[in-house]
Amino acid sequence: MLVRRAIDVRQDDVEQEGAAGVKIRWLIKKDDGAPSFAMREFELEPGGHTPFHAHGWEHEVYVLAGEGVAGGEEGEFPLEPGTVVFVPPKEKHYFKNTGAAPFRFLCLVPHGAV
Amino acid sequence: MLVRRAIDVRQDDVEQEGAAGVKIRWLIKKDDGAPSFAMREFELEPGGHTPFHAHGWEHEVYVLAGEGVAGGEEGEFPLEPGTVVFVPPKEKHYFKNTGAAPFRFLCLVPHGAV
Repeated sequence: MLVRRAIDVRQDDVEQEGAAGVKIRWLIKKDDGAPSFAMREFELEPGGHTPFHAHGWEHEVYVLAGEGVAGGEEGEFPLEPGTVVFVPPKEKHYFKNTGAAPFRFLCLVPHGAV
Repeated sequence: MLVRRAIDVRQDDVEQEGAAGVKIRWLIKKDDGAPSFAMREFELEPGGHTPFHAHGWEHEVYVLAGEGVAGGEEGEFPLEPGTVVFVPPKEKHYFKNTGAAPFRFLCLVPHGAV
Protein backbone atom coordinates (compact mmCIF):
# COMPACT_ATOMS: atom_id res chain seq x y z
CA MET A 1 0.00 0.00 0.00
CA LEU A 2 1.31 3.40 -0.99
CA VAL A 3 0.22 6.39 1.12
CA ARG A 4 1.36 9.94 0.35
CA ARG A 5 0.14 13.49 0.77
CA ALA A 6 -0.60 15.29 -2.50
CA ILE A 7 1.23 18.36 -1.16
CA ASP A 8 4.44 16.32 -0.88
CA VAL A 9 4.38 15.29 -4.55
CA ARG A 10 6.55 17.33 -6.92
CA GLN A 11 4.63 19.94 -8.88
CA ASP A 12 5.73 20.64 -12.47
CA ASP A 13 4.80 23.37 -14.93
CA VAL A 14 2.80 22.10 -17.89
CA GLU A 15 4.80 23.19 -20.95
CA GLN A 16 2.18 22.43 -23.56
CA GLU A 17 1.10 24.61 -26.49
CA GLY A 18 -2.15 26.37 -25.59
CA ALA A 19 -1.67 25.91 -21.84
CA ALA A 20 -1.07 28.91 -19.56
CA GLY A 21 -0.57 28.99 -15.80
CA VAL A 22 -1.02 25.23 -15.39
CA LYS A 23 0.83 22.97 -12.95
CA ILE A 24 0.58 19.21 -12.50
CA ARG A 25 1.32 16.62 -9.84
CA TRP A 26 1.37 12.92 -10.79
CA LEU A 27 -0.19 11.49 -7.62
CA ILE A 28 -0.43 7.83 -8.72
CA LYS A 29 1.37 6.72 -11.86
CA LYS A 30 2.50 3.66 -13.79
CA ASP A 31 5.86 3.61 -11.95
CA ASP A 32 3.96 3.18 -8.68
CA GLY A 33 2.61 -0.11 -10.00
CA ALA A 34 -0.79 1.22 -11.08
CA PRO A 35 -1.97 -1.33 -13.65
CA SER A 36 -4.01 0.82 -16.00
CA PHE A 37 -4.80 4.42 -15.03
CA ALA A 38 -3.10 7.41 -13.41
CA MET A 39 -4.23 10.08 -10.93
CA ARG A 40 -2.99 13.63 -11.51
CA GLU A 41 -3.77 16.89 -9.73
CA PHE A 42 -3.89 20.06 -11.82
CA GLU A 43 -3.54 23.54 -10.40
CA LEU A 44 -4.47 26.53 -12.58
CA GLU A 45 -3.55 30.05 -11.50
CA PRO A 46 -6.23 32.78 -11.86
CA GLY A 47 -6.85 33.16 -15.60
CA GLY A 48 -4.91 29.96 -16.30
CA HIS A 49 -6.25 27.44 -18.79
CA THR A 50 -5.50 24.15 -20.49
CA PRO A 51 -5.44 23.85 -24.31
CA PHE A 52 -8.70 23.59 -26.24
CA HIS A 53 -7.96 20.20 -27.75
CA ALA A 54 -9.08 16.62 -28.21
CA HIS A 55 -7.27 13.29 -27.83
CA GLY A 56 -7.95 9.59 -27.90
CA TRP A 57 -8.36 9.07 -24.16
CA GLU A 58 -10.95 10.10 -21.59
CA HIS A 59 -10.70 12.38 -18.56
CA GLU A 60 -12.34 11.66 -15.20
CA VAL A 61 -12.26 14.90 -13.23
CA TYR A 62 -13.18 15.90 -9.67
CA VAL A 63 -12.91 19.55 -8.62
CA LEU A 64 -11.10 20.10 -5.31
CA ALA A 65 -10.81 23.87 -4.86
CA GLY A 66 -11.52 27.21 -6.52
CA GLU A 67 -13.80 28.20 -9.36
CA GLY A 68 -13.54 27.45 -13.03
CA VAL A 69 -15.22 26.24 -16.17
CA ALA A 70 -15.04 23.22 -18.42
CA GLY A 71 -15.50 24.26 -22.03
CA GLY A 72 -16.38 22.28 -25.12
CA GLU A 73 -18.07 22.60 -28.51
CA GLU A 74 -21.39 23.06 -26.69
CA GLY A 75 -20.23 25.92 -24.45
CA GLU A 76 -18.97 26.30 -20.90
CA PHE A 77 -20.03 24.59 -17.68
CA PRO A 78 -19.32 26.18 -14.28
CA LEU A 79 -17.23 24.11 -11.89
CA GLU A 80 -16.90 24.29 -8.11
CA PRO A 81 -15.53 21.93 -5.45
CA GLY A 82 -17.43 18.65 -5.66
CA THR A 83 -18.21 18.96 -9.37
CA VAL A 84 -17.45 15.90 -11.50
CA VAL A 85 -16.60 16.03 -15.22
CA PHE A 86 -16.35 13.14 -17.65
CA VAL A 87 -14.77 14.01 -21.01
CA PRO A 88 -15.14 11.11 -23.47
CA PRO A 89 -12.28 10.22 -25.84
CA LYS A 90 -11.98 12.48 -28.92
CA GLU A 91 -14.18 15.29 -27.53
CA LYS A 92 -12.72 18.83 -27.61
CA HIS A 93 -12.41 20.44 -24.19
CA TYR A 94 -10.55 22.89 -21.99
CA PHE A 95 -10.49 23.88 -18.34
CA LYS A 96 -10.08 27.47 -17.13
CA ASN A 97 -9.73 29.20 -13.77
CA THR A 98 -12.39 31.94 -13.58
CA GLY A 99 -11.81 32.80 -9.91
CA ALA A 100 -9.27 34.78 -7.89
CA ALA A 101 -7.72 31.77 -6.11
CA PRO A 102 -5.95 28.67 -7.42
CA PHE A 103 -8.29 26.24 -9.19
CA ARG A 104 -7.43 22.62 -8.41
CA PHE A 105 -8.87 19.39 -9.72
CA LEU A 106 -8.03 15.73 -10.04
CA CYS A 107 -7.86 14.38 -13.59
CA LEU A 108 -7.50 10.64 -14.09
CA VAL A 109 -6.44 9.14 -17.39
CA PRO A 110 -5.53 5.71 -18.76
CA HIS A 111 -1.80 5.01 -19.06
CA GLY A 112 -0.34 6.20 -22.34
CA ALA A 113 -2.03 9.60 -22.12
CA VAL A 114 0.19 12.66 -21.69
CA MET B 1 -19.02 16.14 -21.82
CA LEU B 2 -20.83 15.09 -18.68
CA VAL B 3 -20.88 17.56 -15.76
CA ARG B 4 -22.59 16.77 -12.44
CA ARG B 5 -22.28 17.65 -8.80
CA ALA B 6 -21.32 14.74 -6.56
CA ILE B 7 -23.99 15.81 -4.07
CA ASP B 8 -26.68 15.26 -6.73
CA VAL B 9 -25.65 11.65 -7.34
CA ARG B 10 -27.70 8.98 -5.55
CA GLN B 11 -26.03 7.65 -2.43
CA ASP B 12 -26.51 3.95 -1.59
CA ASP B 13 -25.73 1.91 1.50
CA VAL B 14 -22.94 -0.61 0.99
CA GLU B 15 -24.47 -3.95 1.94
CA GLN B 16 -21.28 -5.98 2.03
CA GLU B 17 -20.13 -8.46 4.65
CA GLY B 18 -17.61 -6.77 6.94
CA ALA B 19 -18.72 -3.24 5.99
CA ALA B 20 -20.41 -0.99 8.57
CA GLY B 21 -21.67 2.57 8.16
CA VAL B 22 -20.50 2.84 4.55
CA LYS B 23 -22.26 4.68 1.72
CA ILE B 24 -21.29 4.96 -1.94
CA ARG B 25 -21.96 7.24 -4.89
CA TRP B 26 -20.99 6.09 -8.40
CA LEU B 27 -19.83 9.45 -9.80
CA ILE B 28 -18.59 8.20 -13.21
CA LYS B 29 -19.42 4.69 -14.33
CA LYS B 30 -19.46 2.38 -17.34
CA ASP B 31 -23.01 3.43 -18.25
CA ASP B 32 -21.76 7.02 -18.62
CA GLY B 33 -19.49 5.84 -21.42
CA ALA B 34 -16.33 5.61 -19.34
CA PRO B 35 -14.11 3.21 -21.31
CA SER B 36 -12.15 1.48 -18.56
CA PHE B 37 -12.40 2.82 -14.99
CA ALA B 38 -15.00 4.20 -12.60
CA MET B 39 -15.00 7.02 -10.03
CA ARG B 40 -16.84 6.39 -6.76
CA GLU B 41 -17.18 8.48 -3.60
CA PHE B 42 -17.33 6.64 -0.28
CA GLU B 43 -18.72 8.16 2.89
CA LEU B 44 -18.05 6.42 6.22
CA GLU B 45 -19.91 7.47 9.33
CA PRO B 46 -17.90 7.87 12.58
CA GLY B 47 -16.62 4.39 13.46
CA GLY B 48 -17.63 3.10 10.03
CA HIS B 49 -15.30 0.81 8.10
CA THR B 50 -14.94 -1.20 4.92
CA PRO B 51 -14.17 -4.96 5.01
CA PHE B 52 -10.61 -6.15 5.61
CA HIS B 53 -10.28 -7.96 2.33
CA ALA B 54 -8.31 -8.37 -0.90
CA HIS B 55 -9.40 -8.60 -4.53
CA GLY B 56 -7.92 -8.73 -7.99
CA TRP B 57 -8.16 -5.03 -8.81
CA GLU B 58 -6.44 -1.90 -7.56
CA HIS B 59 -7.78 1.14 -5.69
CA GLU B 60 -6.73 4.71 -6.41
CA VAL B 61 -7.94 6.81 -3.46
CA TYR B 62 -7.99 10.54 -2.69
CA VAL B 63 -9.26 11.71 0.71
CA LEU B 64 -11.78 14.56 0.54
CA ALA B 65 -12.97 15.16 4.11
CA GLY B 66 -12.70 13.90 7.66
CA GLU B 67 -10.16 11.70 9.40
CA GLY B 68 -9.49 8.02 8.98
CA VAL B 69 -7.00 5.27 8.47
CA ALA B 70 -6.04 2.85 5.72
CA GLY B 71 -5.12 -0.52 7.20
CA GLY B 72 -3.21 -3.44 5.78
CA GLU B 73 -0.99 -6.34 6.79
CA GLU B 74 1.73 -3.83 7.71
CA GLY B 75 -0.46 -1.72 10.02
CA GLU B 76 -2.48 1.47 9.78
CA PHE B 77 -1.73 4.74 7.99
CA PRO B 78 -3.44 8.00 9.05
CA LEU B 79 -5.48 9.74 6.36
CA GLU B 80 -6.59 13.36 6.08
CA PRO B 81 -7.91 15.52 3.23
CA GLY B 82 -5.34 15.54 0.45
CA THR B 83 -3.91 12.12 1.27
CA VAL B 84 -3.55 9.69 -1.63
CA VAL B 85 -3.64 5.89 -1.29
CA PHE B 86 -2.76 3.30 -3.91
CA VAL B 87 -3.77 -0.26 -3.03
CA PRO B 88 -2.29 -2.75 -5.52
CA PRO B 89 -4.33 -5.73 -6.72
CA LYS B 90 -4.50 -8.67 -4.26
CA GLU B 91 -3.29 -6.66 -1.22
CA LYS B 92 -5.45 -6.87 1.93
CA HIS B 93 -6.80 -3.51 3.06
CA TYR B 94 -9.54 -1.64 4.86
CA PHE B 95 -10.56 1.97 5.45
CA LYS B 96 -11.98 3.26 8.75
CA ASN B 97 -13.37 6.56 10.01
CA THR B 98 -11.48 7.49 13.19
CA GLY B 99 -12.97 10.98 13.54
CA ALA B 100 -16.23 12.51 14.73
CA ALA B 101 -17.41 13.73 11.31
CA PRO B 102 -18.15 11.88 8.07
CA PHE B 103 -15.03 10.54 6.36
CA ARG B 104 -15.22 10.89 2.59
CA PHE B 105 -12.86 9.74 -0.14
CA LEU B 106 -12.79 9.05 -3.84
CA CYS B 107 -11.94 5.46 -4.82
CA LEU B 108 -11.36 4.68 -8.48
CA VAL B 109 -11.38 1.15 -9.82
CA PRO B 110 -11.22 -0.56 -13.20
CA HIS B 111 -14.56 -1.72 -14.61
CA GLY B 112 -15.57 -5.17 -13.42
CA ALA B 113 -14.73 -4.39 -9.80
CA VAL B 114 -17.63 -4.28 -7.31
